[in-house]
Amino acid sequence: MKNAIVGQSGGPTSVINSSLAGVFEAAKNRGAEHVYGMCNGIQGFLEGRYVDMTGIFKKTMDIELLKRTPSSYLGSCRYKLPALSDKGAKEVYDDIMNRLNELNVGYFFYIGGNDSMDTINKLAAYGKEIGSDIRFIGVPKTIDNDLTVTDHTPGYGSAAKYIGVVMKEIIRDASVYGTKYVTIVEIMGRNAGWLTAAAALAKDNDCEGVDMICLPEVPFHVDRFVEKVRKMQEKKANIVIAVSEGVKLEDGRYVCELSDDVHAVDAFGHKALTGTARFLANTIARSLDTKTRCIELSTLQRCAGHLTSRTDITEAYQVGGAAVKAAFEGHTGEMVALKRISNAPYQCTTELHPISEIANLEKKVPLEWVNEDFTQMKQEFIDYAYPLIQAELTPIYIGGLPQHIFLGEEA
Amino acid sequence: MKNAIVGQSGGPTSVINSSLAGVFEAAKNRGAEHVYGMCNGIQGFLEGRYVDMTGIFKKTMDIELLKRTPSSYLGSCRYKLPALSDKGAKEVYDDIMNRLNELNVGYFFYIGGNDSMDTINKLAAYGKEIGSDIRFIGVPKTIDNDLTVTDHTPGYGSAAKYIGVVMKEIIRDASVYGTKYVTIVEIMGRNAGWLTAAAALAKDNDCEGVDMICLPEVPFHVDRFVEKVRKMQEKKANIVIAVSEGVKLEDGRYVCELSDDVHAVDAFGHKALTGTARFLANTIARSLDTKTRCIELSTLQRCAGHLTSRTDITEAYQVGGAAVKAAFEGHTGEMVALKRISNAPYQCTTELHPISEIANLEKKVPLEWVNEDFTQMKQEFIDYAYPLIQAELTPIYIGGLPQHIFLGEEA
Repeated sequence: MKNAIVGQSGGPTSVINSSLAGVFEAAKNRGAEHVYGMCNGIQGFLEGRYVDMTGIFKKTMDIELLKRTPSSYLGSCRYKLPALSDKGAKEVYDDIMNRLNELNVGYFFYIGGNDSMDTINKLAAYGKEIGSDIRFIGVPKTIDNDLTVTDHTPGYGSAAKYIGVVMKEIIRDASVYGTKYVTIVEIMGRNAGWLTAAAALAKDNDCEGVDMICLPEVPFHVDRFVEKVRKMQEKKANIVIAVSEGVKLEDGRYVCELSDDVHAVDAFGHKALTGTARFLANTIARSLDTKTRCIELSTLQRCAGHLTSRTDITEAYQVGGAAVKAAFEGHTGEMVALKRISNAPYQCTTELHPISEIANLEKKVPLEWVNEDFTQMKQEFIDYAYPLIQAELTPIYIGGLPQHIFLGEEA
Repeated sequence: MKNAIVGQSGGPTSVINSSLAGVFEAAKNRGAEHVYGMCNGIQGFLEGRYVDMTGIFKKTMDIELLKRTPSSYLGSCRYKLPALSDKGAKEVYDDIMNRLNELNVGYFFYIGGNDSMDTINKLAAYGKEIGSDIRFIGVPKTIDNDLTVTDHTPGYGSAAKYIGVVMKEIIRDASVYGTKYVTIVEIMGRNAGWLTAAAALAKDNDCEGVDMICLPEVPFHVDRFVEKVRKMQEKKANIVIAVSEGVKLEDGRYVCELSDDVHAVDAFGHKALTGTARFLANTIARSLDTKTRCIELSTLQRCAGHLTSRTDITEAYQVGGAAVKAAFEGHTGEMVALKRISNAPYQCTTELHPISEIANLEKKVPLEWVNEDFTQMKQEFIDYAYPLIQAELTPIYIGGLPQHIFLGEEA
């Protein structure tokens, strides 16, 4: 029997470790003697860093804690494999293959988003080229929910729930003085507005909801934005706005680039986006007679293990298991996707898709789900997102704080 | 039987509504026919805005939701009553007294922090001067924990728990790439570092804890700070720092004033503090060869109703009840304080203190509780704070989100 290896890549989520637990338990159940974990993804593995998870996770409580520990247990990376045609690429791929063969690995799992699926895509293609029998399967995760093919991605439900909950709390907080106030909340999502749209979930019979939602899918006009806020404040003193970090002007520049912040670029060429809410809050404060506040939800929206969707945690675990099933049944170069059967009652299953349909593509929020003046989400979006935030998985509190599990000296 | 009135003032907390519930139920139990609520504190009351809470809270579930709803149910204000010696002051005080007499109010409760106790202090003094039999009692609340006399203030425990939890999550998140990174987390607290110190609670056998804590009680040196970070990074790539929004240079200027942000001033002369973490993150990025990130915990640290300390919620309710008991027994011009009996087992009771001992004074973190190089809290602080974050009060989740109660059209 061959061994299995699994890695985590890209930005952490609250539930990516639940997928890791799903892969680990399914691989063990199917007879893998060793389930290895790459430390810091493929980058760390190329440096010879990995652990034998079989030796670490011996108690069921450890697995339970793993499911409830946010961020990536094995560490992550943002490492882009060279194109197969690049000079020196063959050495890198052969290095990986040799390392996998040394560990007698037959099944390779990579949990991640767009960029991570690019890694699986390239490894599977190289594997085929050299006739390797190692199976490469992708396990989807990303709070951004921007992977194609899959109905939604594990990680999104918990992030959406976090955003819905804290928007309700921010709205309650912002209303206390009854004075003119504009609160601008900056939410993650570079090009896809799924997370920002989740602010719409706050509206209910106990909450008036956010007053405006600005998605990156809709070209942003600073002057029109200010004018909309001015008009809104004629009727309502206290305005709360959810804005994507990735809103862009019609000429393609990010709004945050109008600020004076430094914007670093990562290995995949993505600019660090920050300062959108602050820029807009300052602009409004200068243009209108109102106080303003900006709130960046920042990393908490992706790592709030204390506030997860049980639906999401469960599905994250399931896609891990489905990936193992697929690999052990001989599939390679594919990603597990979630397929929604129905909304009410909510039912969802898994299916497989060739990874080439997924890698490096982005799924955006359909503009038909946005209202006419591009300020609110329609019911179609609520129907889509509502099932994904249902139910809770309470952390295991010890001494008043959620207990986690982490990879210390072993790494 | 006279009626009671209650107001909420100053910044909201996650548990200030639990004190409101405590006042309401105790006043009703002691026979008050009407328990009125001032809308937006004394400022709204002077505009004739109040509600009859007796007509609103008819079901026990409403009270239960009130306890679990963050922010100030009745709305708040930052209104400073004039000094009795000020020109025109008598008219304001007479206006308030006349309005109270019209409603047949015999018991007046104000839930708030330093500035709110100033209001109670002045009203009680004026009441005595004119021989009024209205009883004025202060109910403490502030996440800042900076009220004197009381062992701690309701609101602090939940905010400290929130900070402990999210610091653990931020530390997990920040460690995933294994690369050089400095994360600076900005925490509330203008002059007192109680909240920032709570970051020390994150350290446990499942978490390495924050690498540095910067309190406002300790003069801040930008150069020495950068040098400390440089030295730390020689041993550990990934550094997480908790810094108070109120850290000051030796010349008294706030560090955030070194940034280019606008800093408005409120009615009590307090400057709005923001941008400390961003300024420090930018400074480090320029000085050292490392990536940096700044995270402002912002309003969430005071309004995260989804993550409260049950100990705190219970004590907030108790001080409300104790205030009613005191007023109905004839006390006036006093504040309810919490008195700790023991740490292990944790026991705490209430007592009364003349409000003049409290108003406008600030209790700071004792420097004996900080280590030699002013970077970490000692065990004395942990012993103090640990009991206050114990146990949870789960929100009532409906449709995946915590249910709240709010004052809509009635206000």
